[in-house]
Amino acid sequence: MSESTRVVAPALDALIPRLREICGPDGVLTDTSQRRVYESDGLTHHRSLPGVVVLPTTGEQVAAVLRLCSEHGVPFVPRGAGTGLSAGALPHTEGVLVVTSRMRRIIEIDVDNECAVVEPGVANLDITRAAAPHGYYYAPDPSSQQVCSVGGNVAENSGGAHCLKYGFTVNHVRGLDVVTPAGDLVRLGGKSPNAHGYDLIGAFVGSEGTLGVATRITVGLTRSPQKTVTLLSAFHSMDAGGRAVGDIIAAGVLPSAVEMMDALAIEAAEEAVACDYPEGAAAVLIVELDGPSAEVDAQLAEVERLCHGAGSFETRTAVDDQERARIWKGRKSAFAAVGRISPAYIVQDGVVPRTALPDVLRAIAALSASSGISVANVFHAGDGNLHPLVLFDDAEPGAGARAEVVSGAILDLCIQHGGSITGEHGVGVDKVCTMPRMYGPDDLETFDLLRRAFDPAGIANPDKLLPTPRLCGEQPGVRRGSHPLVDSGQAEQF
Amino acid sequence: MSESTRVVAPALDALIPRLREICGPDGVLTDTSQRRVYESDGLTHHRSLPGVVVLPTTGEQVAAVLRLCSEHGVPFVPRGAGTGLSAGALPHTEGVLVVTSRMRRIIEIDVDNECAVVEPGVANLDITRAAAPHGYYYAPDPSSQQVCSVGGNVAENSGGAHCLKYGFTVNHVRGLDVVTPAGDLVRLGGKSPNAHGYDLIGAFVGSEGTLGVATRITVGLTRSPQKTVTLLSAFHSMDAGGRAVGDIIAAGVLPSAVEMMDALAIEAAEEAVACDYPEGAAAVLIVELDGPSAEVDAQLAEVERLCHGAGSFETRTAVDDQERARIWKGRKSAFAAVGRISPAYIVQDGVVPRTALPDVLRAIAALSASSGISVANVFHAGDGNLHPLVLFDDAEPGAGARAEVVSGAILDLCIQHGGSITGEHGVGVDKVCTMPRMYGPDDLETFDLLRRAFDPAGIANPDKLLPTPRLCGEQPGVRRGSHPLVDSGQAEQF
Repeated sequence: MSESTRVVAPALDALIPRLREICGPDGVLTDTSQRRVYESDGLTHHRSLPGVVVLPTTGEQVAAVLRLCSEHGVPFVPRGAGTGLSAGALPHTEGVLVVTSRMRRIIEIDVDNECAVVEPGVANLDITRAAAPHGYYYAPDPSSQQVCSVGGNVAENSGGAHCLKYGFTVNHVRGLDVVTPAGDLVRLGGKSPNAHGYDLIGAFVGSEGTLGVATRITVGLTRSPQKTVTLLSAFHSMDAGGRAVGDIIAAGVLPSAVEMMDALAIEAAEEAVACDYPEGAAAVLIVELDGPSAEVDAQLAEVERLCHGAGSFETRTAVDDQERARIWKGRKSAFAAVGRISPAYIVQDGVVPRTALPDVLRAIAALSASSGISVANVFHAGDGNLHPLVLFDDAEPGAGARAEVVSGAILDLCIQHGGSITGEHGVGVDKVCTMPRMYGPDDLETFDLLRRAFDPAGIANPDKLLPTPRLCGEQPGVRRGSHPLVDSGQAEQF
Repeated sequence: MSESTRVVAPALDALIPRLREICGPDGVLTDTSQRRVYESDGLTHHRSLPGVVVLPTTGEQVAAVLRLCSEHGVPFVPRGAGTGLSAGALPHTEGVLVVTSRMRRIIEIDVDNECAVVEPGVANLDITRAAAPHGYYYAPDPSSQQVCSVGGNVAENSGGAHCLKYGFTVNHVRGLDVVTPAGDLVRLGGKSPNAHGYDLIGAFVGSEGTLGVATRITVGLTRSPQKTVTLLSAFHSMDAGGRAVGDIIAAGVLPSAVEMMDALAIEAAEEAVACDYPEGAAAVLIVELDGPSAEVDAQLAEVERLCHGAGSFETRTAVDDQERARIWKGRKSAFAAVGRISPAYIVQDGVVPRTALPDVLRAIAALSASSGISVANVFHAGDGNLHPLVLFDDAEPGAGARAEVVSGAILDLCIQHGGSITGEHGVGVDKVCTMPRMYGPDDLETFDLLRRAFDPAGIANPDKLLPTPRLCGEQPGVRRGSHPLVDSGQAEQF
């Protein structure tokens, strides 16, 4: 067998014919060149060639694949569109990569019950496209929404700029067909919003592929607002901008989005897309208001007044789509734009209580000054979800490692201020060894109880989400083995 | 030992001294007369004397009690204020009843982060009382909110009239300190709204005491609305009222509450509290709107127009608290009022997709006509949560049983129409044998996976929530033993 067709793990060879029976000949990829396409997700510095790739087209096929994996103790990794930023879909070299990209039917737009039933490979924005003619949209809006899959959104509990008002993916999922790691097809919830008994939808959304694969997803749809207004306000300092955010929320206004950019992020965006933000701004705030016209008009006046009161030196208001797009252009291009002012960068993702934002931003500035490593800040200010961009030159020896240190220190700042190590990108491989900084041994063991209940053999997206000594070395809070309760002598209690 | 002091189960005798060490001498009740106080919750036809009652004052005491139970394989049942309506807090005769009524400190009202930290015994309405001076309230409002405990709300994922707009308990819980059935004290979530990894808060809220006991609860607070308007609209038929509900939602208006009563419920309320609803109404709709004044005014005009268009013959609007109270008086007294027109009744609780309401209400009317058993309807129309009151005379032999049959048939109607067997009262003992009508064996086994992960010994509120053959007889979907995966030969997979 030539290098181009060899399956990495010989143990998988025996499974290939059965996988072909299940998914059809063109639903199983074994060629190295084909498999290479899937070797990373959006976090491209983690790479690993999948043992074999399957492209099922139905929930029954997914169930049959997972049953086969379960029978043979073979690991599997679910993957949607591969836009994730925590290497949650990093393939297993000796496992099966289950790609949902061929499951992209929108099964139903149920206007009366304000919900959509879709397959996991459907792109996030395609739900909104299908619902828009009926006056509805799908609210969670990760920045990759044009391409990212709803199944991936479910796995990561994805957020977006408008989750301040409308909540994360978990707040919109009403029903799930799920294949468990044992290959059982289970239905959770349905079209009615009320669940009872265990809310396994809550546990499944955000479980990063460790509890199984969602094969059919029912999401609530949100009424398209009567009016939307976007406001851009410029400040001479981040402190002043932060004060405006606090004042807006304290006044009882709940904007659909409150985004903030610092001087370095503005500079990058300006160079990249000439977004024409107010000259001399050390901070810009983008505030979006939506709802009934009467409400939006009243709130707009209030927000303008509060921004001015906090020290804004210029505020612009956009009322049509074209003007709105111009305001959002700088914000939406900021991540990519940073690539023009720095050869390389790390996108960090952490959360702090909104009230801690000013302190944490000052501490990040101090960290940047003392380390000599630039940090640009672009973030969801309304819900305290930071996205610091840690800049470095990857041609300079050791620069990447120093940037990693600063990036990690920012997470410690988040934890110290009562926040968390990820807001919307997930844990995946990227932050698995950071978990013990945030959770104690009992907390991690409780998470593990749930994981092992669904996946005792440890075949569902292994080495993601929860730390082990093999992954992270001996640390306080890292489980000693794959069955901590047995290893730690507590098994008798159970 | 006299009857009045004898502990029912001798096996518990050995534990009493240790429980007294943990909870103090006055924190352990063994007298029969004292224990009798706790023999039922709000569903009073289920009664059982607890083996022993403990009244811990701290999370550490709860942990020590549960550790003791775990060591001795003794069952425990958590209880809040005992207002539940599914016998979820029915005591175990050979177990420990863990009552949280002495844990009623409001630890913190954190206005900046819009949340409250409370102990589980705090009454629901007391959070709102503490938050009100700051311009906030706690949104979930079960009708028992004056007395029901937040811990009980968490166990049952309680709703209320205003959950249409604001969501259930699970949508408001941000953080939990939980004692697991093994006696471990675990912290889930915190003050930041964003969780990551497994959303065990989602799984714990609504778990009816089967996954442990919450000892500290962080809930989000909601801004008191600038304006609230309540509207009462009367119709000549339930169909017309139902049409109005559909039209309101279809118009994109999201009221904070949409309640509906039928002729029999109106008649009962009229006799009991002389609520003075419009004469000749076959249905009344109560619609509450809240939010910024500008929005509420615009929506009020729209709702009045839609009610009129659907055939309302009279609409009243209340703008001050006194007028609002008058409108709500009939609705809030309806359950108790039915006691004046019928010697006994069953309060049923089921959910249907809102669009199925007219069909289901017509089917309930047909069921009532064919069985000769009266059914009064008082319900949360906006989210399809029915509360049919099945009336009967308990002095008449067999009448109770016939009412049970009608009550059960109503649940079947809910299931047939894509709904569920409980909206907000929970499963408890009351509906445990109804679960297989709604869930298949794989679904129930998946629920059981989670339960057994936390509680392998089966000591946490046993015989509630999930059916067993001992409880329900052999039915399709009922687990064959307490460890179904072992019993059904699937253990090797795990």
